[in-house]
Amino acid sequence: MSAPAPAGATSVAGLLGEIADVGRDATRGGWSRFVYADAELTLREWFVEQAQRRSLEVETDRNGAIWAWRPGTGPAGAAGSPHAIVTGSHLDSVPGGGAFDGPLGVASALAAVDLLDARGVRTERPLAVVAFPEEEGARFGVACLGSRLLAGAIDPDRARGLRDADGRTFAEVAAGAGLDVDRIGPDPARLAGIDAFVELHVEQGRGLVDLGQPVAIGSSILGHGRWRFSVTGEGNHAGTTRMVDRRDPMVVAAGIVLAARDAAVAHAEARATVGRVVPVPGGTNVIASRVDLWLDARHPDDAVTAAVVAEIERQASRLAAAQGCAVTLTEESYGGTVHFDADLSGRLARVLPDAPVLDTGAGHDAGVLASAIPTAMLFTRNPTGVSHSPEEACEDADAEAGAVALADVLERLLQEPVGVS
Amino acid sequence: MSAPAPAGATSVAGLLGEIADVGRDATRGGWSRFVYADAELTLREWFVEQAQRRSLEVETDRNGAIWAWRPGTGPAGAAGSPHAIVTGSHLDSVPGGGAFDGPLGVASALAAVDLLDARGVRTERPLAVVAFPEEEGARFGVACLGSRLLAGAIDPDRARGLRDADGRTFAEVAAGAGLDVDRIGPDPARLAGIDAFVELHVEQGRGLVDLGQPVAIGSSILGHGRWRFSVTGEGNHAGTTRMVDRRDPMVVAAGIVLAARDAAVAHAEARATVGRVVPVPGGTNVIASRVDLWLDARHPDDAVTAAVVAEIERQASRLAAAQGCAVTLTEESYGGTVHFDADLSGRLARVLPDAPVLDTGAGHDAGVLASAIPTAMLFTRNPTGVSHSPEEACEDADAEAGAVALADVLERLLQEPVGVS
Repeated sequence: MSAPAPAGATSVAGLLGEIADVGRDATRGGWSRFVYADAELTLREWFVEQAQRRSLEVETDRNGAIWAWRPGTGPAGAAGSPHAIVTGSHLDSVPGGGAFDGPLGVASALAAVDLLDARGVRTERPLAVVAFPEEEGARFGVACLGSRLLAGAIDPDRARGLRDADGRTFAEVAAGAGLDVDRIGPDPARLAGIDAFVELHVEQGRGLVDLGQPVAIGSSILGHGRWRFSVTGEGNHAGTTRMVDRRDPMVVAAGIVLAARDAAVAHAEARATVGRVVPVPGGTNVIASRVDLWLDARHPDDAVTAAVVAEIERQASRLAAAQGCAVTLTEESYGGTVHFDADLSGRLARVLPDAPVLDTGAGHDAGVLASAIPTAMLFTRNPTGVSHSPEEACEDADAEAGAVALADVLERLLQEPVGVS
Repeated sequence: MSAPAPAGATSVAGLLGEIADVGRDATRGGWSRFVYADAELTLREWFVEQAQRRSLEVETDRNGAIWAWRPGTGPAGAAGSPHAIVTGSHLDSVPGGGAFDGPLGVASALAAVDLLDARGVRTERPLAVVAFPEEEGARFGVACLGSRLLAGAIDPDRARGLRDADGRTFAEVAAGAGLDVDRIGPDPARLAGIDAFVELHVEQGRGLVDLGQPVAIGSSILGHGRWRFSVTGEGNHAGTTRMVDRRDPMVVAAGIVLAARDAAVAHAEARATVGRVVPVPGGTNVIASRVDLWLDARHPDDAVTAAVVAEIERQASRLAAAQGCAVTLTEESYGGTVHFDADLSGRLARVLPDAPVLDTGAGHDAGVLASAIPTAMLFTRNPTGVSHSPEEACEDADAEAGAVALADVLERLLQEPVGVS
């Protein structure tokens, strides 16, 4: 997305152009928009302002998600009324991420509202655009934290106690942003009022590029977990400690990185990644006393994911023993493979007969909510196939095609008689 | 050192007790006292106050080292006068370091001044106690930065441009602390006035423990360098990117860690350490786009150090090519093996006939200054043998024995007729 937005534009490109400078990361490149940090708070304000411009009714729920309601025509058609159709995504990013992962779904939702307005679509069912907090888990370590809280997929006490890299708790940070953190947690009444949630997202792979199509329908999300390895050895002086006297956790951590790669390569479709390594104390002339490293592992078959992690753990124990170190493995999050609602996806396919059906290795709020309500996803083409990186891309025309597809889907879903789904 | 200092004590333990709470690192454990950060500035103030209590004449030199002069009795016996004997060490620490690496030498020097005063030692030669800045290189990456500048062993422009982890330059930070950074650089006139520099330091190994002695005389410092590997790959999504499509620099970095260990193990007395690894962007669900890692390598024979680094570089290139990544190697600092002045060390041995003679793998300001003036070192026993870690230790009685040994040595050196050395 290169050109700035024309004044007054409601195009997806125009909307994203308005926030293109928010949270740029000069060090890493790309954008860093961590939940409740300045950049993400600015995006929230922008979202609220965009919602108000469209006369949507804005509320922040008990878990910090922002809902912008387009009321239905029925007697109970206001905010939070039942039989709602909901779309949206998230505004936060990974560190040094791209411009589209999250915001494309929110901007496409706003553009779809404009299209529905332009088409004069008024229905008994209300529509809401939602922005979930901490989808990436980049700050507090648990992906889809907002939707997990909403769906009861994480204990509120555990969420309150999650810490960011500065040691601040989620409770402390969220309270600072105005959330009543005593009230976070499951909200079944809210979920009961939603008949369908459709999340549009930039594709995080080359499926649509290879197929020559701008928009796809999602079928499933690979099972996905995060594990933390903590390797403890003996901190010491890098110059005075003979190699044979060392208990160096960095050597074990390096072996775990390679074991993760090997374990994933051994299983088709498996993915294992170590993207974050934190040695303590982290000095150049110091043998580390501890190294923490995080494993991200995924596979369509939950049993294979478990086998991959078990294999890495086995290697980690062996490597640690050989170096006189100790290693612990902590599961920080896990979600099994999610198949989106077949009926809902089928209805999307009837609206978008040319759209291919693709699965994804990326986690999404739609995957978390799938356990509670019918959910579906749309993917918009990404010419680089790259995501979680500044190289992530989306052509303006594809972004508009995505918004039109979303509007088409929402229009059809909104028009379904209440009680059908 | 556990007990607090008795009021008015001039014991080494008492002096260190006064600063035991400065720069404690709650996250890493131990102490983090980075040059020109709050904790180190507090230690500087403490040192100046201690010097003033002893009626020493305090000056800060053009490179930020603090000199506390005990004038000689000669006509030109004031601060900076020639034929001086100098002792001291540094106040900064590695991240999460111990309480003794640096401050023990400064506190022992102050205690030695008290002993000389108590003995009524007045000599023609002046004595100075010096505290050098950034000995560890923990903030700006170049060890012994203060003594290197003094001795002309680093280009002042390069020093000014060194950056800390927050991206701030040495020039900016040092200027903020009051240094005239345009004037940093070699100070041959100051060096010409010094006939001997003796640095006392906590031992960073178990040599004295094994020998059952409290104090040793240093013989040499292993050649020592720091190199930075930057491995560049392709940042991407950890879930959507197939293993075969990856160019993951973390896999290469892990291989380099293991190659460093293997290369050092293959050469007796070689040491190679990776204690610092920084993936960019560093997210759990992100394949890194770049990983920087730092190699610390040492050996008594400079040719072997070079061979070890060359072997690691060869492996790094091979590993990078296999992963479709690029790797660059930058030498950040290097100092060849230093043998302390034989004549000066011989004089120390005559004063301390029971003291064993030990070499060390650790770098010191005394090693840098050895190229310009006669230098020697004393080591005080460390019961754990551990350094650069909170486990670093020194018994009170050994600390006092070290101060007495230092006072004995200084007394003898101060009494040498001017012109002998």
